[in-house]
Amino acid sequence: MTALPSPNHCCSSSSSAYSVNSSIGFHQIQRNIPFSLIPQKKFGSKNVSFRSKCSPSLPDVVLMQDAPSPKELKEGLLTVEDRNTVVSDGKGDDSTVSITIVGASGDLAKKKIFPALFALYYEDCLPEHFTIFGYARSKMTDAELRDMVSRTLTCRIDKRENCGEKMEQFLKRCFYHSGNYDSEENFTELDGKLKEHEAGRVSNRLFYLSIPPNIFVDAVKCASRSASSANGWTRVIVEKPFGRDSESSAALTRSLKQYLEEEQIFRIDHYLGKELVENLSVLRFSNLIFEPLWSRKYIRNVQLIFSEDFGTEGRGGYFDHYGIIRDIMQNHLLQILALFAMETPVSLDAEDIRNEKVKVLRSMRPIRVDDVVVGQYKSHTRGGLSYPGYTDDKTVPKDSLTPTFAAAALFIDNARWDGVPFLMKAGKALHDRRAEIRVQFRHVPGNLYNRNVGTDTDRATNELVIRVQPDEAIYLKINNKVPGLGMRLDRSNLNLLYKARYTKEIPDAYERLVLDAIEGERRLFIRSDELDAAWSLFTPVLKEIEEKKVIPEYYPYGSRGPVGAHYLAARHNVKWGDVGVDE
Amino acid sequence: MTALPSPNHCCSSSSSAYSVNSSIGFHQIQRNIPFSLIPQKKFGSKNVSFRSKCSPSLPDVVLMQDAPSPKELKEGLLTVEDRNTVVSDGKGDDSTVSITIVGASGDLAKKKIFPALFALYYEDCLPEHFTIFGYARSKMTDAELRDMVSRTLTCRIDKRENCGEKMEQFLKRCFYHSGNYDSEENFTELDGKLKEHEAGRVSNRLFYLSIPPNIFVDAVKCASRSASSANGWTRVIVEKPFGRDSESSAALTRSLKQYLEEEQIFRIDHYLGKELVENLSVLRFSNLIFEPLWSRKYIRNVQLIFSEDFGTEGRGGYFDHYGIIRDIMQNHLLQILALFAMETPVSLDAEDIRNEKVKVLRSMRPIRVDDVVVGQYKSHTRGGLSYPGYTDDKTVPKDSLTPTFAAAALFIDNARWDGVPFLMKAGKALHDRRAEIRVQFRHVPGNLYNRNVGTDTDRATNELVIRVQPDEAIYLKINNKVPGLGMRLDRSNLNLLYKARYTKEIPDAYERLVLDAIEGERRLFIRSDELDAAWSLFTPVLKEIEEKKVIPEYYPYGSRGPVGAHYLAARHNVKWGDVGVDE
Repeated sequence: MTALPSPNHCCSSSSSAYSVNSSIGFHQIQRNIPFSLIPQKKFGSKNVSFRSKCSPSLPDVVLMQDAPSPKELKEGLLTVEDRNTVVSDGKGDDSTVSITIVGASGDLAKKKIFPALFALYYEDCLPEHFTIFGYARSKMTDAELRDMVSRTLTCRIDKRENCGEKMEQFLKRCFYHSGNYDSEENFTELDGKLKEHEAGRVSNRLFYLSIPPNIFVDAVKCASRSASSANGWTRVIVEKPFGRDSESSAALTRSLKQYLEEEQIFRIDHYLGKELVENLSVLRFSNLIFEPLWSRKYIRNVQLIFSEDFGTEGRGGYFDHYGIIRDIMQNHLLQILALFAMETPVSLDAEDIRNEKVKVLRSMRPIRVDDVVVGQYKSHTRGGLSYPGYTDDKTVPKDSLTPTFAAAALFIDNARWDGVPFLMKAGKALHDRRAEIRVQFRHVPGNLYNRNVGTDTDRATNELVIRVQPDEAIYLKINNKVPGLGMRLDRSNLNLLYKARYTKEIPDAYERLVLDAIEGERRLFIRSDELDAAWSLFTPVLKEIEEKKVIPEYYPYGSRGPVGAHYLAARHNVKWGDVGVDE
Repeated sequence: MTALPSPNHCCSSSSSAYSVNSSIGFHQIQRNIPFSLIPQKKFGSKNVSFRSKCSPSLPDVVLMQDAPSPKELKEGLLTVEDRNTVVSDGKGDDSTVSITIVGASGDLAKKKIFPALFALYYEDCLPEHFTIFGYARSKMTDAELRDMVSRTLTCRIDKRENCGEKMEQFLKRCFYHSGNYDSEENFTELDGKLKEHEAGRVSNRLFYLSIPPNIFVDAVKCASRSASSANGWTRVIVEKPFGRDSESSAALTRSLKQYLEEEQIFRIDHYLGKELVENLSVLRFSNLIFEPLWSRKYIRNVQLIFSEDFGTEGRGGYFDHYGIIRDIMQNHLLQILALFAMETPVSLDAEDIRNEKVKVLRSMRPIRVDDVVVGQYKSHTRGGLSYPGYTDDKTVPKDSLTPTFAAAALFIDNARWDGVPFLMKAGKALHDRRAEIRVQFRHVPGNLYNRNVGTDTDRATNELVIRVQPDEAIYLKINNKVPGLGMRLDRSNLNLLYKARYTKEIPDAYERLVLDAIEGERRLFIRSDELDAAWSLFTPVLKEIEEKKVIPEYYPYGSRGPVGAHYLAARHNVKWGDVGVDE
């Protein structure tokens, strides 16, 4: 086992998560704030005071669900949380936003969260009064934090001239507080510092939990008891894993909800922040040409493909506890599937979209264990280089059966999708890195050109490919005539390659998500009933695989993965679209 | 009037045609050949002996309509013409093809026909035994003809090394015979020379009439009486104009049919030989995604746009007798419209396709004169250069009202297209050169993204553009999200630019058409009932415009044409697609 490629691990799916096993009791901390003291609440008002120029366009009508329920009014139990609060953040008004990154010295914080915040600042997307606090156990001064943060900031956008200056200004707004994740005392100290910066203004506070899941609940408890806002909103961003099955996920949710209202919890699935996943609904609902096509009548199958070209590389400890199905399929791919397959929502409002996604998840047929193929990569030598197998990773048990690859066939038993296979495939240490959605259309009935198509009629069907990464692109494979005399057909692409069309760099998913959390836009975050439905779908098959100790199919590091995936596809009359001559 | 751009006139629509005024009587010349003497006839046989590698794929089943009718058998009246004859031409068999270009010294012959024949030869698409004869009034030796022809031949395909050699071989197969177009004696001499070259083999003869239409019938009479094949097929290619209204067209057809069967007449519309016009049916019928879209339910309007960026430039004599409606609309654009709008044919066989095209033409609503806008270009000075007006052309009468521009709204009153405007626009001396089909789709009903679209909702609809020339391309305008934070929609193109995808040069329309005529493939040629229907549609409105002496709207040379075209479009709720910011 020698020289390895050195991938950027921060983008990997397994960067910042551990197992969850606590479910400490909490209670609602904000229930005693009198309604009249919350100055920015204007229930039912259409008077939206401020949107940052970066805000997604939302209907400027405040929906009825934002009004307090009679029960809430009666009990005085109010979450300090409301769309109007949100949109009135920012310049020209008197509120502040404090963003505390809990776990500030971790990889994710350094490589993604601080840079995303800087990019937002650079693009003038943060409110006028904001403060950023790093919070972690290590001892560090503000200057040391700034030094650490500055090393990962880049002036990636437009490379404007005043970048150095902007960076300096940004760093001046960054502070550090050292403390334990389970110490109310330390959080109380933090609260004191936050108050100083807030200087009497309306205080809005965002906590980004970039810490192992086994200390999630402790940190939430301390933050909410000792450091939540007294007169504005308090929101918490959490990252997966949200449990490892239905039970542990429900326990985590119950624990969090002892301290937080559902509206305060922002469960990140960073795939939902990817440009082309965001674009999926736009493509589908703003283009008439896709409207008649989007159903079992025209779509033969849908493929959701995720691959990484590197393995766990010494960081398999967390991963081994979860496996690829929990790490990628149950969240990222399933979320994309739900967005893809949902019915038209009433509006683009978060709740309307999430309602439709839940309906898809709840319409899904239980996954049969024989509709799942699992694999694990083994070592492989190529071009003089040795690539380690999964169990060569020192953090992984030698006898681990944890799948690093899985393929599955899923079905949605509703009127739109009955009988259409949704195939998922996800794996580590494969031959390339990609994430894409492939929509294969049906054969042309009574095709006049059958003679010209050759023997592989499957290749002659239309295919829509939405490539999420790398090199964001949309392309539609169509048949056309090869120019020249005679009549030879060919599959060509109608292409939209983002980097060819748009010169501006595409923002990182974290920028969008952090901004959305600040603005209270929940469209791209997972609601707890969505999470429950996702676990309900995968928990039984996961348990069966684990109880039966299903031996994974071993595949060489850097290969295309287990051939079993092809047999699975074949059984459902599908051919994977990412293996053709013209991928 | 000084320096002018010097466009290549040979590609212009008005290169080789004059008025028709003869209708001399003829009689069928081939009726006395006994059926048993036609060796290659195999009615009903599936034994297709030879297809050149360049042939379009046809069903290899011979259709019943190729069998002689009882009447034909009884009368012994047989056209020496049959699909099997056709496909047995060529290598490895004992038949010859003699191609006589009548009018060999003209521009079209030099610039298009000889080069097309050479390209076919170069690509190995001509049968083994072929001879080319130039026929014209001028005195010329074979060597002089070869010298003339060689000047326009280019090794455009792949620039292979043996091009010079191939050219020499090709020129050795070219001969010349001088004669009058109305002299049976001269054609008898030609017949003698052809027989020498045929050397006793089965003789197939193709006459390409590249002569003014007023001598069409004379030439056909002489060719058929004195120089048609005794034991193979005889075919005649004619180019527009096919009359200038229903009556003159019918008279021409009647005259030709005294000497030729319908199956012997190949009426060229060279637009049908263009790559993307050929591709139109492929796109439509081999791609499932277009199937549900191709009707009034999803299509808001269809636009057929033709523009040239030069005027008549001293060659307006012919054009002035016809005008742009006859020169472009009644044939090229209407043919494309019919191909676009037709129902799915039973097969790709020529008769099936032409049957469907005729049905479209016959379903069309009579054109109202107020649904037509006519224009004429006037002189214009720009950047120090003067561009002449149409009536500055010395070959054009000073008081000519002949339209050099026209726009029209057409409707197909059938179940598929009821209410969908088909807008045509054609003009000379405009700001650019293009020929394209634009399909504008309807608005998205209940569009969730209406807020993001801005005020010009028409711009937010999907559009399919098939650009026939220049730079052949297909693109589909779709809405997508502008990458970045926020939700801004944008129209992007899903693109297929031919020159980016296909390195091989696209063959000239004439290559395809000449090859098809040799092979007896009639799909791209106009049948007489199609021609009748096309004239029936345009004759009344043409007469009305001419009788009323409608004054054309004058537009400057090099402009976008009369604004009247916009008002016409607006009246039908259409916006021309070729004038937007993102054409």
